[in-house]
Amino acid sequence: MADYRAPLNDMRFIRDEVFNAEREWQEMPATAELNAELADAVLEEAGRLVEAELFPLNQSGDAEGCRFEGGEVTTPTGFRAAFQELAGGGWCGLGGNLEHGGQGLPKLLTQAFDEMLYASNAGFALYLSLNNGAGLLLDAYADETTKALYLPRLYAGEWLGTMCLTEPHCGTDLGLIRTRAVPEENGRYAITGSKIWITGGEHDLTENVAHLVLAKLPDAPAGAKGISLFLVPKRQVLENGSLGGANGVVCGGLEHKMGIKGSATCVMHFEAAEGILIGEPHQGLATMFTMMNYERLSIGIQGLGLGDVAYQSAMAFASERRQSRAPGGAVEPDQAADPILVHPDVRRMALNVRAWNEGGRLFAAFVARELDRAKHHPDAGMREVAADMVALLTPVAKAFLTDRGFAATVESQQIYGGSGYCVEWGAEQFVRDARIAMIYEGTNGIQAMDLVGRKLVRNQGAYVERLAEQICADLDDSDDGHEIDASALRSFREAVERELARFERVSEALIEAAKADPAAAGAAAHDYLQLLGYTVYSWMWWKAARAAQRGLARQGAAGEDFYRTKLIVGQHFLTRQLPQAESLERQIAAGPSGLMALEASHF
Amino acid sequence: MADYRAPLNDMRFIRDEVFNAEREWQEMPATAELNAELADAVLEEAGRLVEAELFPLNQSGDAEGCRFEGGEVTTPTGFRAAFQELAGGGWCGLGGNLEHGGQGLPKLLTQAFDEMLYASNAGFALYLSLNNGAGLLLDAYADETTKALYLPRLYAGEWLGTMCLTEPHCGTDLGLIRTRAVPEENGRYAITGSKIWITGGEHDLTENVAHLVLAKLPDAPAGAKGISLFLVPKRQVLENGSLGGANGVVCGGLEHKMGIKGSATCVMHFEAAEGILIGEPHQGLATMFTMMNYERLSIGIQGLGLGDVAYQSAMAFASERRQSRAPGGAVEPDQAADPILVHPDVRRMALNVRAWNEGGRLFAAFVARELDRAKHHPDAGMREVAADMVALLTPVAKAFLTDRGFAATVESQQIYGGSGYCVEWGAEQFVRDARIAMIYEGTNGIQAMDLVGRKLVRNQGAYVERLAEQICADLDDSDDGHEIDASALRSFREAVERELARFERVSEALIEAAKADPAAAGAAAHDYLQLLGYTVYSWMWWKAARAAQRGLARQGAAGEDFYRTKLIVGQHFLTRQLPQAESLERQIAAGPSGLMALEASHF
Repeated sequence: MADYRAPLNDMRFIRDEVFNAEREWQEMPATAELNAELADAVLEEAGRLVEAELFPLNQSGDAEGCRFEGGEVTTPTGFRAAFQELAGGGWCGLGGNLEHGGQGLPKLLTQAFDEMLYASNAGFALYLSLNNGAGLLLDAYADETTKALYLPRLYAGEWLGTMCLTEPHCGTDLGLIRTRAVPEENGRYAITGSKIWITGGEHDLTENVAHLVLAKLPDAPAGAKGISLFLVPKRQVLENGSLGGANGVVCGGLEHKMGIKGSATCVMHFEAAEGILIGEPHQGLATMFTMMNYERLSIGIQGLGLGDVAYQSAMAFASERRQSRAPGGAVEPDQAADPILVHPDVRRMALNVRAWNEGGRLFAAFVARELDRAKHHPDAGMREVAADMVALLTPVAKAFLTDRGFAATVESQQIYGGSGYCVEWGAEQFVRDARIAMIYEGTNGIQAMDLVGRKLVRNQGAYVERLAEQICADLDDSDDGHEIDASALRSFREAVERELARFERVSEALIEAAKADPAAAGAAAHDYLQLLGYTVYSWMWWKAARAAQRGLARQGAAGEDFYRTKLIVGQHFLTRQLPQAESLERQIAAGPSGLMALEASHF
Repeated sequence: MADYRAPLNDMRFIRDEVFNAEREWQEMPATAELNAELADAVLEEAGRLVEAELFPLNQSGDAEGCRFEGGEVTTPTGFRAAFQELAGGGWCGLGGNLEHGGQGLPKLLTQAFDEMLYASNAGFALYLSLNNGAGLLLDAYADETTKALYLPRLYAGEWLGTMCLTEPHCGTDLGLIRTRAVPEENGRYAITGSKIWITGGEHDLTENVAHLVLAKLPDAPAGAKGISLFLVPKRQVLENGSLGGANGVVCGGLEHKMGIKGSATCVMHFEAAEGILIGEPHQGLATMFTMMNYERLSIGIQGLGLGDVAYQSAMAFASERRQSRAPGGAVEPDQAADPILVHPDVRRMALNVRAWNEGGRLFAAFVARELDRAKHHPDAGMREVAADMVALLTPVAKAFLTDRGFAATVESQQIYGGSGYCVEWGAEQFVRDARIAMIYEGTNGIQAMDLVGRKLVRNQGAYVERLAEQICADLDDSDDGHEIDASALRSFREAVERELARFERVSEALIEAAKADPAAAGAAAHDYLQLLGYTVYSWMWWKAARAAQRGLARQGAAGEDFYRTKLIVGQHFLTRQLPQAESLERQIAAGPSGLMALEASHF
């Protein structure tokens, strides 16, 4: 009933024509051997795999869910075989360090695979996503012995990694955690405590699980500055890499959730389990944050992927379903009714979803490119500029992509009418699966606080200035006159200029307001993040429109279908989505006083 | 885990202080004996009932769902006993005709009961809601014999009614239905065909079910003008009202749905089932539409009720959950963290939900009052004015209330963080249960088309003019100077004036645009409906603010908590929600060309 094909054409367009990835890659030694042809081969094979192996398990995985019995977790039928197929193909190590058996591919490429994973089977995708995060963290902070023991196995999907942060009484406020780590004589630590909402905490996909666990040492300072990070395997790992006995890691049960039911969300008990310290004592949060930027983009991409599969499925439905006649009279008079895509309101919904998806795909690729630059660029200055951009945009990538992704699934579901509410069509699952992405990996409210607090106010707008410089340079750079007609891009350019000015104006006002009132940042946070999202999307759409115009100029009629469609979708963003920015500016101007006026007891 | 108390204080405020219902009721003979005291007694008892009997079955009903076995449907554990309790108390006939054993209460009162029903148990509420609709329809169109046979039993909850419209190939476009009605010698009809998505089509709550079925007579004109309406009981009804044999009505199965799982959504097969014609031949759609206005308000109230229970539950969570510190420093320094309601962004979400709920409650009461006037007012001119208002606002009541209701459940769920995604807390059920209300009883897109097509363009803005007159008269009427300080209401008044002007401007432009382009109405429909919603809510909030100021002037400190809170929530609407109207105006101005530009095959 649902329908999914990996959107390879749009991915290629973004990679090659918008971001000129091949040139990008060849500038950086770490990716110098990669080219568009190789990237294509990877994505084509990825598309084939997810379409053939994962998507067919999506609805059945949701219906069946994970089972917990006798301390063990069984994933839905077919998950284990599909996982082994993926692992065997090296797909668990796509972005992993080459030195330890990873494939060393840049984020600008691997994020496209992430999108396919989430689109085809979000519950399944999470096992790989968490494993990627664990791999990145160990690669950055573990000692050589540990890396040599763990990384090849995580990259091969022989074992899988998890992140164990949340406890029943604390999620956002990790300074409150109670899990303890007591040093042992052998230099290791005995970890004791309970964690909840652990994705892939226990399952039948691999014989070992590598848990990355936040815990407090006996001498830890209070609060968030006293958190350390430990690697705690489910089964002991011997020096030769073979598995020893059980390690005091017990699954206490599964959460019953609204969606992502194929993903095992576990309660985990650590009972004097032996662990290794990763990074410095008491630096666990900082250690973990080094990989958060990657993880947060990945969760943003969950929204994007689900928005796309929801769109594709809804369009498959809409092309078959016939109800009523087109506004100007029957389009197919020999049929009892016209296909519902003749109706302007159905098209409005479809274009809304599509514009969010394609704008999101542009934005995700952009953030991925900056992540690659920040990590691999030979020029230190470029690395720093990119790192600042990543810092500013990561909360947007997580929150704006997931807000829009959820909205995309809801709007797609609406296109079905009543069928969208019935389980068999699959549309309602996309809504349920997308909903979590706004919540976990730091709620979208927390992302907004991070943006306003750390990324705007703390540095007095320095990141915003850098963003503005980059946008202006990009706009200037486009004046290549001879290639395309500037008038065709005028509406896109004007939108970027207007929105950037608005965003700078709002940013300045907010920096001032925050000086006067400690509640000002929080009161504006949500809308400010949205406003930055709209601003950056307007830039992304300008870039896409420019590439589309160039494509038209180059290919003429041959490229007509793709490029004209791209421009129409972009115009839809400008005229039917971007006007929101104006409302956001007004809402931000409302300030904190109204929010803080009520006594807590009057809510 | 979830929490619900019937919001009696706010209901009283709206009834007595905003709409002065007692005076209203006493002006109309049909309700002259009703007063605020009696209304209070009804609502207090209703509140007690839904809190004690229905709310405790809400989560269990969702988890258990309905079962289908051997052609029979079993409702979730406890539903049958709770239904009998309600039926025994006369709650199925609250708005029913006094002559046939109903209680004859006005919609302005019964809609408050509807809200409680949906809030406490949406799946359960639907059995009563559909029954109300069937009762209204029979009361308006059935002959005296049929009324005498059926109405007392529907009002007593001895039997229940359904509406059988949709077929697998048609929902919105009912002109395509294939169910046939063949006249029999006894003046009755043999009904044959299949219907889907029939709420309460089969269940174990009552021994008989009265189906109201759309079907086509042999000589029917093609399309929507050839539909007739029939009453088809599950079991034959003998002349003395006792039950005869089965009547060729067979349940073919249950739909598996995203939510409202306690509601039996049935596939129904009619196999030469005997039916009675209701109303005139071929006038079935028109007949049915006479009660649609009531039903559509009721479905709107589903959104409102779920928004409120979601809010109350989230506030119960928020008052217990502690994470991090208030922006200005610890509020409760002796605790490890502050309650999350100290955070401006949590308050923003809470006030968003609350403002939607309270604005929706005002609006629902207003539409209910107009429904009562249109039906019962002794002055024919007043009846006509009210009927026009109902015609204009019914699509808004259905769509805007359910859009906002769904948003309210999603925003409430967000307040929980991860707990909101876990089934045990109940927040995710409210989201799933609210989602359907945007789809059924005419999708919200269809409501928008009805608004723009029939209620705006067809009569060239006559209803809009009437609305504007009524708003202006109301604003003038408020200049009672001595009672309250006009400056305290200024922001509310200015908002109404600005939004009314905007709405009139947009309406005029849209009437013009529709002359030039048949796609213009459909392209604007969604946003135009939203704009009318915002416009009317700004009026409702002005009315509420005026009543609150009067209350403050009258009661002083005694009323401080309630009235000050009301004003703060109203200000939140003005500063943080109403700015959307500006974006909507821009989006409408985009017109249809962008939506219609893409070939269908390029979606």
